[in-house]
Amino acid sequence: MIVVMSQEATPEQIEAVLRKIESFGLQTHPIYGVQKTVIGVIGDDKTKVVETMAGYSGIEQIIPILKPYKFASRETHPQNTVIDVSGIAIGGDKIAIMAGPCAVESREQILNTARLVKMAGGCILRGGAYKPRTSPYSFQGLGEEGLKYLAEAREETGLPVITELTDPRNIDLFCEYTDIIQVGARNMQNFVLLTEIGRSGHPALLKRGPSSKIEDLLLAAEYIIKEGNLNIILCERGISTFETYTRNTLDLSAVAALKQLSHLPVVVDPSHSVGVANLIPAMSMASIAAGADGLLVEIHPNPNAALCDGPQSLDFETFTNLMHKLRKLAAAIGRDL
Amino acid sequence: MIVVMSQEATPEQIEAVLRKIESFGLQTHPIYGVQKTVIGVIGDDKTKVVETMAGYSGIEQIIPILKPYKFASRETHPQNTVIDVSGIAIGGDKIAIMAGPCAVESREQILNTARLVKMAGGCILRGGAYKPRTSPYSFQGLGEEGLKYLAEAREETGLPVITELTDPRNIDLFCEYTDIIQVGARNMQNFVLLTEIGRSGHPALLKRGPSSKIEDLLLAAEYIIKEGNLNIILCERGISTFETYTRNTLDLSAVAALKQLSHLPVVVDPSHSVGVANLIPAMSMASIAAGADGLLVEIHPNPNAALCDGPQSLDFETFTNLMHKLRKLAAAIGRDL
Amino acid sequence: MIVVMSQEATPEQIEAVLRKIESFGLQTHPIYGVQKTVIGVIGDDKTKVVETMAGYSGIEQIIPILKPYKFASRETHPQNTVIDVSGIAIGGDKIAIMAGPCAVESREQILNTARLVKMAGGCILRGGAYKPRTSPYSFQGLGEEGLKYLAEAREETGLPVITELTDPRNIDLFCEYTDIIQVGARNMQNFVLLTEIGRSGHPALLKRGPSSKIEDLLLAAEYIIKEGNLNIILCERGISTFETYTRNTLDLSAVAALKQLSHLPVVVDPSHSVGVANLIPAMSMASIAAGADGLLVEIHPNPNAALCDGPQSLDFETFTNLMHKLRKLAAAIGRDL
Amino acid sequence: MIVVMSQEATPEQIEAVLRKIESFGLQTHPIYGVQKTVIGVIGDDKTKVVETMAGYSGIEQIIPILKPYKFASRETHPQNTVIDVSGIAIGGDKIAIMAGPCAVESREQILNTARLVKMAGGCILRGGAYKPRTSPYSFQGLGEEGLKYLAEAREETGLPVITELTDPRNIDLFCEYTDIIQVGARNMQNFVLLTEIGRSGHPALLKRGPSSKIEDLLLAAEYIIKEGNLNIILCERGISTFETYTRNTLDLSAVAALKQLSHLPVVVDPSHSVGVANLIPAMSMASIAAGADGLLVEIHPNPNAALCDGPQSLDFETFTNLMHKLRKLAAAIGRDL
Repeated sequence: MIVVMSQEATPEQIEAVLRKIESFGLQTHPIYGVQKTVIGVIGDDKTKVVETMAGYSGIEQIIPILKPYKFASRETHPQNTVIDVSGIAIGGDKIAIMAGPCAVESREQILNTARLVKMAGGCILRGGAYKPRTSPYSFQGLGEEGLKYLAEAREETGLPVITELTDPRNIDLFCEYTDIIQVGARNMQNFVLLTEIGRSGHPALLKRGPSSKIEDLLLAAEYIIKEGNLNIILCERGISTFETYTRNTLDLSAVAALKQLSHLPVVVDPSHSVGVANLIPAMSMASIAAGADGLLVEIHPNPNAALCDGPQSLDFETFTNLMHKLRKLAAAIGRDL
Repeated sequence: MIVVMSQEATPEQIEAVLRKIESFGLQTHPIYGVQKTVIGVIGDDKTKVVETMAGYSGIEQIIPILKPYKFASRETHPQNTVIDVSGIAIGGDKIAIMAGPCAVESREQILNTARLVKMAGGCILRGGAYKPRTSPYSFQGLGEEGLKYLAEAREETGLPVITELTDPRNIDLFCEYTDIIQVGARNMQNFVLLTEIGRSGHPALLKRGPSSKIEDLLLAAEYIIKEGNLNIILCERGISTFETYTRNTLDLSAVAALKQLSHLPVVVDPSHSVGVANLIPAMSMASIAAGADGLLVEIHPNPNAALCDGPQSLDFETFTNLMHKLRKLAAAIGRDL
Repeated sequence: MIVVMSQEATPEQIEAVLRKIESFGLQTHPIYGVQKTVIGVIGDDKTKVVETMAGYSGIEQIIPILKPYKFASRETHPQNTVIDVSGIAIGGDKIAIMAGPCAVESREQILNTARLVKMAGGCILRGGAYKPRTSPYSFQGLGEEGLKYLAEAREETGLPVITELTDPRNIDLFCEYTDIIQVGARNMQNFVLLTEIGRSGHPALLKRGPSSKIEDLLLAAEYIIKEGNLNIILCERGISTFETYTRNTLDLSAVAALKQLSHLPVVVDPSHSVGVANLIPAMSMASIAAGADGLLVEIHPNPNAALCDGPQSLDFETFTNLMHKLRKLAAAIGRDL
Repeated sequence: MIVVMSQEATPEQIEAVLRKIESFGLQTHPIYGVQKTVIGVIGDDKTKVVETMAGYSGIEQIIPILKPYKFASRETHPQNTVIDVSGIAIGGDKIAIMAGPCAVESREQILNTARLVKMAGGCILRGGAYKPRTSPYSFQGLGEEGLKYLAEAREETGLPVITELTDPRNIDLFCEYTDIIQVGARNMQNFVLLTEIGRSGHPALLKRGPSSKIEDLLLAAEYIIKEGNLNIILCERGISTFETYTRNTLDLSAVAALKQLSHLPVVVDPSHSVGVANLIPAMSMASIAAGADGLLVEIHPNPNAALCDGPQSLDFETFTNLMHKLRKLAAAIGRDL
């Protein structure tokens, strides 16, 4: 790390900082510049050292040089991690399309959708049973009943299922009923939840929070990995910006950046990112061209009647057409669907 | 609510929308414009109706006219809510200064700080025992031991305490040990946690999430109130923006807006907002001038040695000076400290 | 437009608003709701009427229903506009790759680059002669000398050139030396400049400002079109957000949205968007998959020695490889390069 | 400056970077860490050196240690700059209230307003004659006629006037008619305009752009100062964020930060920041408490009839009441109005 002392720092303050850093067993290399003194520090950038030093008098800023995450980093794990989800590989050459409704609304709705997903070539079924909603007056999901319908759809179609966990007390239930546990954007920094998922060892999809930097997402993944669970899929789903035409701003550079910084698979949720159905096919194509390993798309047999996120759900026809186009695109970039 | 049909909507689509809205028992008033048809709807703006309609074909946008929150709204509760926290009134004429370290680090540290807070005229002691940190390698707090030190400090000084809850499974522990349960910014939309706090009836301080709109904060409060708990203090603590000079951007217009939109008390956390100690006194003054009912300030007996948030902690001397200036300011605007 | 009266509005205030709106020759349709009165207005949404009404007492908000831009809108001009730039068609099936250095640095540099652009299959040469830079201490460009080198490169290779105009007093010079006048992101709302370009009738590329909404960009285009110049290429180049890993956040949903909202061609500048060379190939691919009509890419014969934007310039080999991949992608989506 | 080499950098790349830096006459101090090499550089942080190095192979990042602006910095000019505007001192103990309509609409309107500003204790009259508006269909101002009405109002009341310049070709006209030339937020990085103002030596008020960092604002001021004009007032007027309740987000930490980083006076425009009249008094109070040297407030004799920005204009009564409260507040912080 680099410690920049302020222009007004006294020799005593500089000395105190040097002694303190050395007390952690680290080497210091002070550089006395014309206006400011800068201290280079050799040794592991321990987060706690950075934090301990941060409040010292006379310090203008501390610049960490090493990345604050370890296990999620490609530097420590150069090969792509490929995750096995009940026989489906995620993070390899094959692109994984996960599709389904925002919320499981009824047995019939989820069964119909599952059949369509399978027919169109999707490989995983999504559907929310416990729905975190901005308003307490919105539909909150069917709960355990929803999990059971998902399990039934899985049994019939053979598609693994992904659904969102919001309460750490439900972890066992989710390990039983679902193939991938989804952590929603609002819970990306719910560290209690992340720790439970880490301990479970179950495959998890971790969505980026709407005001989370790329680095914050990797640190959140680190909470899971630290407990011994490497089965993590990262998911870009849009960030909060001033633009109001779309629900969030889909940040596709994050996909390319995450693929460089980390070995974990990266997928995109175009539905929540833009929130407008007629932009979703274009954003799905762009996501794959940007290097994503998969998509998480909302579809609904009848968007007119959806209890949740109707405006951003694709109908079956649009989804089927999109799958055709994605297949051509995948071939052009040397992958397949 | 107002439903705007797109320019391409067919008469059949318009008709279908009208019929569906009327099926909820609401009156419709279609206005056939030169280019577009707009439908005015009379009756309560039920969130679920808005959501059900949202996916209908031919609809360009739905504009709710009534506010989506009810119990948090000043429209339904015109007088200020004044919350009683173990004898301290929050939300009345008196401004409440809550101060203490980011994290409880030791028995001595929290006892010393508590004495200083009391001496300087603060009325509530803050201190984190369970710390949610962006990195899993940062100090995570002393846990239950920290709660006990806080309780001891309260016993000695008589100051009520506030500390952050992160796990719904700890709700009973917190009701026992703390006077105000703090919900951190990362957990503002942890609805499982909000529901538990609502059921407990315990006073709570709800921090605005870094990418949450003013309306989202009020809807999060609504999750707590809906369970029968009106003892809520709202807290502005900065939002995520492109500016990097400060940790977050303190949004003081939100304070003035919240005081108009809601009857709940509003306080400001200048420490986490700006993250730079030498801007905090000015932002504390500005917060009170903007109409805040209190402050939540980080102070530390020795910021050089803080295990957490050292750079944004005020030392005792700076805090004492700030209290003098706040007292003069409060008098000038007809309040007191 | 829709006028929402506040809950406290008096009958007199409602009456005054109705009378005022009718004085503009517009029809009013008041809807008296349970809590609030809403007034539907039929007739053209004249911006000035909206603005005049905006300050009236008792009004809570005014919601325009029609789009505030006209000539830039696809509603008034359903077919794609294809612009002829010295024989190159932009906005049709063929994707236009514009490439070159951030700044013209020397005769040799721009000539070498132009030859490479041509060889690799690019169709337009970019290069800045007048450089607006955040710091006055940065390289400001070669000025008129740079324009002359560009003209020489055009003569030799036959590639049309694009370069940025910053001073309205230079409009004639630019019409003489350049094929497309570029309006930089910082000048998107320099209405004096836009008006001059409008009057000149010269093809122009208009970059989105870093804090400009999609609608603001279309309104800026409207300033040019209003003067009679329809030869406008819109350009997405990233917006300001909290993410610091990339220079700006590339907003590819804006590309898809602009293609729906407007008939004008849309291109992407991946270089300024992300500002990191190794993310640019992926973002170029994603831009084309999102529906862009072209790219504006920074390349440099020797990025190590660039006087400007070296870190985001592609070297010739990377650019040539990218062109191969773009060609395959274009074919997969039914276009060509 | 500090140069961080990437983990993959070869010894040859490191050597090349060292040689190049030394070729500028700067001293290098390489620190060979466990994973990465970091190079400390002693000597002035010349912007052009930083930029030249930026594209070198093997460099991960370059971290400037010295501030990129010089003349605007308090480091080079520790005392506050107090600007004399036709006898009014700005930047001293006295707080300057500048008030008036968004746009000059008529002779009568501006004369009435000027009288009120004077009577209420304001010291400078504001009013736009050339209005940059997002839409070309909005009222664009009276132009030179507006300047003449302002001059007449100045003559009658003795109040100096401030008005916005948008076209570099009008600089002489503005030096003749106005006491302070305003640079609007959209033109903060219109470097052609800044250079002309710099050369004129005329007092100027420079508004922060909606996506400009604090540092960008100081670099824009540097463009003016570099030409020999130190008569600059900085103005915070809100930044673009995801919050939609207010027009922009007023960033009051920027006021405190600018007062620390620079010697130039800092004022706040609460009207454009929040865009909602009933939040403006609170934000005016907060601005002064944050340390601002003045305010730029929109007032209108009849906001109901304003041609521009009616919703954010204060009526005379509200403004007069606000002045009373500001006077008390100023006294409490040791300043006066």
